[in-house]
Amino acid sequence: MSPLVVQKYGGSSVADAKKIKMVAARIVEKKKKGNDVVVVVSAMGKTTDCFVDLAYEVSNNPPDREMDMLMASGEQISMSVMAMAIQDMGYDAISLTGPQAEIITDTAHRRARIVDIKATRVKQELEKGRIVIVAGFQGISGKNEITTLGRGGSDTTAVALACALGADLCEIYTDVPGVFTADPRIVPNARKINEICYEEMLELASMGAKVLQTRSVELASKYGIKIMVGLAHKDVPGTIIKQEDNSMEDVLVRGIAHNFDEVKFTVRHVPDKPGVAADIFSKLADKGVNVDMIIQNIGADGFTDMSFTVSTEDLEKATALSDMIKTEVGAQDVICDEHIAKVSIVGVGMRSHTGVALIVFRTLADKNINIEMISTSEIKISVVVSDDCAEEAVKALHEAFKLGN
Amino acid sequence: MSPLVVQKYGGSSVADAKKIKMVAARIVEKKKKGNDVVVVVSAMGKTTDCFVDLAYEVSNNPPDREMDMLMASGEQISMSVMAMAIQDMGYDAISLTGPQAEIITDTAHRRARIVDIKATRVKQELEKGRIVIVAGFQGISGKNEITTLGRGGSDTTAVALACALGADLCEIYTDVPGVFTADPRIVPNARKINEICYEEMLELASMGAKVLQTRSVELASKYGIKIMVGLAHKDVPGTIIKQEDNSMEDVLVRGIAHNFDEVKFTVRHVPDKPGVAADIFSKLADKGVNVDMIIQNIGADGFTDMSFTVSTEDLEKATALSDMIKTEVGAQDVICDEHIAKVSIVGVGMRSHTGVALIVFRTLADKNINIEMISTSEIKISVVVSDDCAEEAVKALHEAFKLGN
Repeated sequence: MSPLVVQKYGGSSVADAKKIKMVAARIVEKKKKGNDVVVVVSAMGKTTDCFVDLAYEVSNNPPDREMDMLMASGEQISMSVMAMAIQDMGYDAISLTGPQAEIITDTAHRRARIVDIKATRVKQELEKGRIVIVAGFQGISGKNEITTLGRGGSDTTAVALACALGADLCEIYTDVPGVFTADPRIVPNARKINEICYEEMLELASMGAKVLQTRSVELASKYGIKIMVGLAHKDVPGTIIKQEDNSMEDVLVRGIAHNFDEVKFTVRHVPDKPGVAADIFSKLADKGVNVDMIIQNIGADGFTDMSFTVSTEDLEKATALSDMIKTEVGAQDVICDEHIAKVSIVGVGMRSHTGVALIVFRTLADKNINIEMISTSEIKISVVVSDDCAEEAVKALHEAFKLGN
Repeated sequence: MSPLVVQKYGGSSVADAKKIKMVAARIVEKKKKGNDVVVVVSAMGKTTDCFVDLAYEVSNNPPDREMDMLMASGEQISMSVMAMAIQDMGYDAISLTGPQAEIITDTAHRRARIVDIKATRVKQELEKGRIVIVAGFQGISGKNEITTLGRGGSDTTAVALACALGADLCEIYTDVPGVFTADPRIVPNARKINEICYEEMLELASMGAKVLQTRSVELASKYGIKIMVGLAHKDVPGTIIKQEDNSMEDVLVRGIAHNFDEVKFTVRHVPDKPGVAADIFSKLADKGVNVDMIIQNIGADGFTDMSFTVSTEDLEKATALSDMIKTEVGAQDVICDEHIAKVSIVGVGMRSHTGVALIVFRTLADKNINIEMISTSEIKISVVVSDDCAEEAVKALHEAFKLGN
């Protein structure tokens, strides 16, 4: 049996006819090498943006269900054109919509989750020797409705398909050469990571590294699917994301992520008694606000302060809840600070080495950067700092852990 | 039960956000008047042309199956945006793809025929009081493949849906105000026809009047669905196409059609014996060439001449067959004449009135226009003339039968 590779090409990689032909050539190359190939494509270039503009030209509040209908046509365009380009090169190819590939999702329009992939048709077409092009980002709900998976959804489609088909490799092609030790726009000597394990990638992705969607890494980890992230239009090695093993470079810290898209709320002077935290966070959860970090200081005189961060996206919702929280838990005040950033260092090496936190604190102290919040996991240390010193913090830590070239 | 109206809006009527909003207002107006409304939309403006260009940028010979996939996304865009625009006006609307509306076709990509419309979902949504927007031009084959119906397919979708739902009226909105007694670009005083019966419309459509697809008139006639053809962006009465009845204006000739898109072949000096015509036309039929008119002169000395016309579309195929025909039936020569045009006068009045043919022949003779071929039906007389005198023939006949304003 031939090895099976699932490839995914993002919107900028298939932005016009010329780029589509370049990608088609790359796909054919993979097939020629003896692989079975399934390709997931996003909508061409700015298609999605154009659709959003069009929707807001006719509606102040386009309904989610119709937005999904509109958006899903974007991948239908790119995938059919891709299939044509491949066939024009003399290779057999067929495009399949999300419904045809039986990518079954829940019914949450614009942020659906894949609940099952049957992929019967995909397997049949592969058996005929065809290259199968599947629409990314979309699926079909149990109610026979077209759904989309939300941001980065095409990555998830690719990894989920790779899992469902038991692929040997899932290649995510994009416009960055791989996963870096830090954002190269901030740290010029940041290095491309050759291999990284799922847990590290998960932490980096959820801490702000934008190269891969958290959900797709979770899926790959669960099913043990190896991912390669790399450049769509250049044949250079990217970053391999896989199970942790001995062959991996033995480092203390694998990489540094940063995230400017968080906001800090501080609930001041709340009664220091059981149930208060539960009260606050259940209200936020009820409204779908995702809370990231939480800290509570030791109280005095029966009162305490509590801080938490949420994504900037949820700022409005969280602010709306602030007043309610204030009244209901009897807090003195709720303060919102938008000028924060989160910096995280990630590495499985931390499991067996101590003193990593100390290096972080000392490095930041040396630069006179104040740490506002700290959160740690077995393989991660995150700190919240003022947003105007976040870049300096990333640079200093990158230097301190000798991650550069 | 509310009356049910199926409306169809062509591509130029929904070419941009502004036009979509205008059409949405019109749809809402219909709903407000107490109708249940189903709307069939074509792809926005030049979308289809753009898609064709894109396809040919990546492929010299885009496969039909992928072209259908690409094309079908065009209606998915326009219908979802239309549903948004209507919802923005405070009315409930939902868009359905061809597959969702269960428009079942055969498997002939790019020229599929509707074999069944279940429309279960359409009925359910109507029962909820919603305006239902259905993608025109597309369907799903028994093999779960997306198909398109070929040119004018959205008209067929609308009429077929009207039949399946037992609609009270099918309104086809376009950029012409209705069916005219002749092409107003040729005959300036051509008059809009208020009412016309199915048979007349069928003859006019198949004889070259482009306002409605023949197939959709056939369907409407079979199921007795009344059609109204009129302007999308102006509320003026169009032309009603319906069962012939006493209320219709009693005229000898309803209208005149012309068609420049035919080519005449003459097979010279073929043996005048049984089976020769069968030989010739079975070969053409085998290759899918649609033969329109056929005439055979009386033979002499055991030989005869035979002429037939085919659509310009089939010119290449027919020419390729010419040589074969020549050899196999022992003809002296096969001559092709591309410089012809067909002019047809149509009217149910001809059934009960004689002398119509005579008026046609005399009118053309007076203008010194030579008739190359003649074909008649109960309600139609078609003549083939040289293409450079076709316009004059149309004008003269329009005048002779007093069809103008």
